[in-house]
Amino acid sequence: MRGPRHNLPPNPLSKKEIRMTDRSLENKRILVTHAGHFIAPVLCEVLAAHGATVIASHEALIDPAEPARVVAAAGHIDVLVANLAEPAPSTPAVEVGDDEWRRVFGAIVDPLPRLCKAVLPAMIARRSGRILVMGSASALRGMKRASTYSAARGAQLSYVQALGVEMAPHNVQVNALAMNFVDTPTYFPDSVKANPRFQERLQREVPLGRLVAAREDAEFAAFMCGDAAGCFVGQVFPVCGGWVTR
Amino acid sequence: MRGPRHNLPPNPLSKKEIRMTDRSLENKRILVTHAGHFIAPVLCEVLAAHGATVIASHEALIDPAEPARVVAAAGHIDVLVANLAEPAPSTPAVEVGDDEWRRVFGAIVDPLPRLCKAVLPAMIARRSGRILVMGSASALRGMKRASTYSAARGAQLSYVQALGVEMAPHNVQVNALAMNFVDTPTYFPDSVKANPRFQERLQREVPLGRLVAAREDAEFAAFMCGDAAGCFVGQVFPVCGGWVTR
Amino acid sequence: MRGPRHNLPPNPLSKKEIRMTDRSLENKRILVTHAGHFIAPVLCEVLAAHGATVIASHEALIDPAEPARVVAAAGHIDVLVANLAEPAPSTPAVEVGDDEWRRVFGAIVDPLPRLCKAVLPAMIARRSGRILVMGSASALRGMKRASTYSAARGAQLSYVQALGVEMAPHNVQVNALAMNFVDTPTYFPDSVKANPRFQERLQREVPLGRLVAAREDAEFAAFMCGDAAGCFVGQVFPVCGGWVTR
Amino acid sequence: MRGPRHNLPPNPLSKKEIRMTDRSLENKRILVTHAGHFIAPVLCEVLAAHGATVIASHEALIDPAEPARVVAAAGHIDVLVANLAEPAPSTPAVEVGDDEWRRVFGAIVDPLPRLCKAVLPAMIARRSGRILVMGSASALRGMKRASTYSAARGAQLSYVQALGVEMAPHNVQVNALAMNFVDTPTYFPDSVKANPRFQERLQREVPLGRLVAAREDAEFAAFMCGDAAGCFVGQVFPVCGGWVTR
Repeated sequence: MRGPRHNLPPNPLSKKEIRMTDRSLENKRILVTHAGHFIAPVLCEVLAAHGATVIASHEALIDPAEPARVVAAAGHIDVLVANLAEPAPSTPAVEVGDDEWRRVFGAIVDPLPRLCKAVLPAMIARRSGRILVMGSASALRGMKRASTYSAARGAQLSYVQALGVEMAPHNVQVNALAMNFVDTPTYFPDSVKANPRFQERLQREVPLGRLVAAREDAEFAAFMCGDAAGCFVGQVFPVCGGWVTR
Repeated sequence: MRGPRHNLPPNPLSKKEIRMTDRSLENKRILVTHAGHFIAPVLCEVLAAHGATVIASHEALIDPAEPARVVAAAGHIDVLVANLAEPAPSTPAVEVGDDEWRRVFGAIVDPLPRLCKAVLPAMIARRSGRILVMGSASALRGMKRASTYSAARGAQLSYVQALGVEMAPHNVQVNALAMNFVDTPTYFPDSVKANPRFQERLQREVPLGRLVAAREDAEFAAFMCGDAAGCFVGQVFPVCGGWVTR
Repeated sequence: MRGPRHNLPPNPLSKKEIRMTDRSLENKRILVTHAGHFIAPVLCEVLAAHGATVIASHEALIDPAEPARVVAAAGHIDVLVANLAEPAPSTPAVEVGDDEWRRVFGAIVDPLPRLCKAVLPAMIARRSGRILVMGSASALRGMKRASTYSAARGAQLSYVQALGVEMAPHNVQVNALAMNFVDTPTYFPDSVKANPRFQERLQREVPLGRLVAAREDAEFAAFMCGDAAGCFVGQVFPVCGGWVTR
Repeated sequence: MRGPRHNLPPNPLSKKEIRMTDRSLENKRILVTHAGHFIAPVLCEVLAAHGATVIASHEALIDPAEPARVVAAAGHIDVLVANLAEPAPSTPAVEVGDDEWRRVFGAIVDPLPRLCKAVLPAMIARRSGRILVMGSASALRGMKRASTYSAARGAQLSYVQALGVEMAPHNVQVNALAMNFVDTPTYFPDSVKANPRFQERLQREVPLGRLVAAREDAEFAAFMCGDAAGCFVGQVFPVCGGWVTR
């Protein structure tokens, strides 16, 4: 079971700048929600670097009427990037209370159909549009003390599968990323990353042997927003260093 | 693409009686929730035929305090069969309102952690127990006009995966069935089944070429409740005639 | 990441005898190939204990004509349990030679279509039959130094999926188990199991926290051979302690 | 089950030219095998348009020594695109003979480890490299009269999963596409595409409602060859219009 264990660069794309010659998102207006959270700041940068006009929404989207307001205010939307962020609780399953459940589902799950419902009519009318959900691989593989978060993320992915199939005949593609082990300061502050035990765990649990750079997630998302990626229907793409592969 | 299309028996196990020599569930007390709905009536019969003492709960479990009450009233529970039934709406995604979303999640999703939280402490203390969730394959494969239901069923399955991993060290196994195309009068009344167009659709969409008998689902569930099935952790078993295979 | 780590019984079903009241395989003639290898000896015992007439074949099945001979000699076959065993090489991928590749595919892959081709005509004619392939979870999740074996096992599982769909209209069900971490002396001799580092690895890699008893695999296989399990089409059931879940 | 059925453009990327501003593959030398078959001609074009130096190999790779020769002749290789094409037989499973099995495995499966073994030592030494296998979704979902082809394609995908995990610590990423329903004249000549029954089948079986343009497959492959896609390990990406989603 022993493989080589060299010191991998923890974050290749932040060291070696990607040459942003690709302007494939020019003329695309992309709405990104929860734009200050999770990998969204990097995502907004990358989308813009590829030529997109990014509408960054910082609304909490907890109020049931807010998704529609945000969408209306955004004007024409070619792509909705449904990023719904909420810190993952680490409560043992037997201690999970209604409050935690409600809070996480209220932040991650409930706004999703409201956002989709708001953007879809115009996309259907134009016979063109894209929704990309920034989901989590915790919905695809079990982790301890993550039952609430996994359940909420699972609702997202199954929603994407169903909506994808329903929207495909309208030439609107709905898909999701299933991320984990993303290198963001929120999840993995430098103090944690410097810890040798953390490094060891990473080697053991993540086949990639390092965290996924936020920029890598963002580049994949950018590809999925472009015209070249119009053939995917209700799919879930794991981006988690091989922690899950399908 | 043309295969043979013989007249398959629509429901093999209802015609030829299974010989119920197997008493492998003797000494097991099994709590079945929503016991009057979906395949639960057949399930209760089959579990009892295999020797189990079945505690059939008919409570709606919408009231947040009810799951704990039901579990407390049941006494010793070896296996919780978390059957949470709710008719699947067929609303187009753009018309799904908060009411539908809330109703379905309130019936299918929210009671699940409450039930598990109520049964688990005793199982953990005994270092022995089993939870089986009667889930839906609609969480694994997209269907049109099923976004709400799929999302709710997806939350269940991802919850099972996470809880399964967390409970395994306590020798408590948590798994799920992912059913679809079950032959119950609720879903497929005789009038529907007699329709040649329905028969044709069945041949086309379900590799099995017939509905799955409720008894077949129940027999698989019974197996999963027994001592012989103590090695499964957070798994989801599709039982839908090959409509999804994993 | 720390869960409880009690001393789990390494093999529950060998300690506490399962009560073999279940005679659900009476009147079934089941051919088991490579009957002396892998979990087949336990499997043959368990199938017989459930009432089956077991035809145990010990032929190597390397000679292309042997599968047909074995099947012809077996007489009436209700269920073919295609168990094809071969020690998994642990060669680094860059050192894998044609010899290893050929030997493993010759043992695990090539005999499978020959066996199926030999048993299927009678099953199709009777409109009744079952094939169960004793496959490996190494086909579903990558492992280091296992490329040859994984590839061969992958061929088996995809074959099962395709054959399952093709045979379903004939009322012949073809499915597979995807096993790993099975407690057999071949794979895990007592000296290995006693090693604390092995115990630690098991805790870390296998959510179940122990090996799967050969008897547990066998009981699941026995269930899949019975009349109650006639609704599965081309499915792959992981039996590996949650190492893969789908 | 009825959704809208507009006339979708059968091949969006061939009508509206993608603007090839993206030169992200500059400085990459990419070896493409079976370069005249399947989608490889389009793939070579697209890779070149993104700036890559494409080494197109037209060797059959049946001779066991040929993969090493092709690799040696190619010089420095940054990415191996292992495209191994062979017409899919449509033989009923009971009629599949050793000849067909051997021919398909000889073309699709056996050359793969030989190719990888030839390119990997230099990649490992440089601690940089990529292998992308152009696989088939027929390995992920069963189809009638496709048992040989599915099995061979299944061997490829499981090989990729294992090799991916083994190579990740060397900073070499190995992944695969799982394609189906690709719009190439070989698979779907104009006469077939014009057939209304074919159109109907497409609507029914492929959620996308149209064939996938070869160019769409190629653009995704091009993305997977680039520096931005260095975080995927042993993954299989379905590109088949939602026919399988994971």
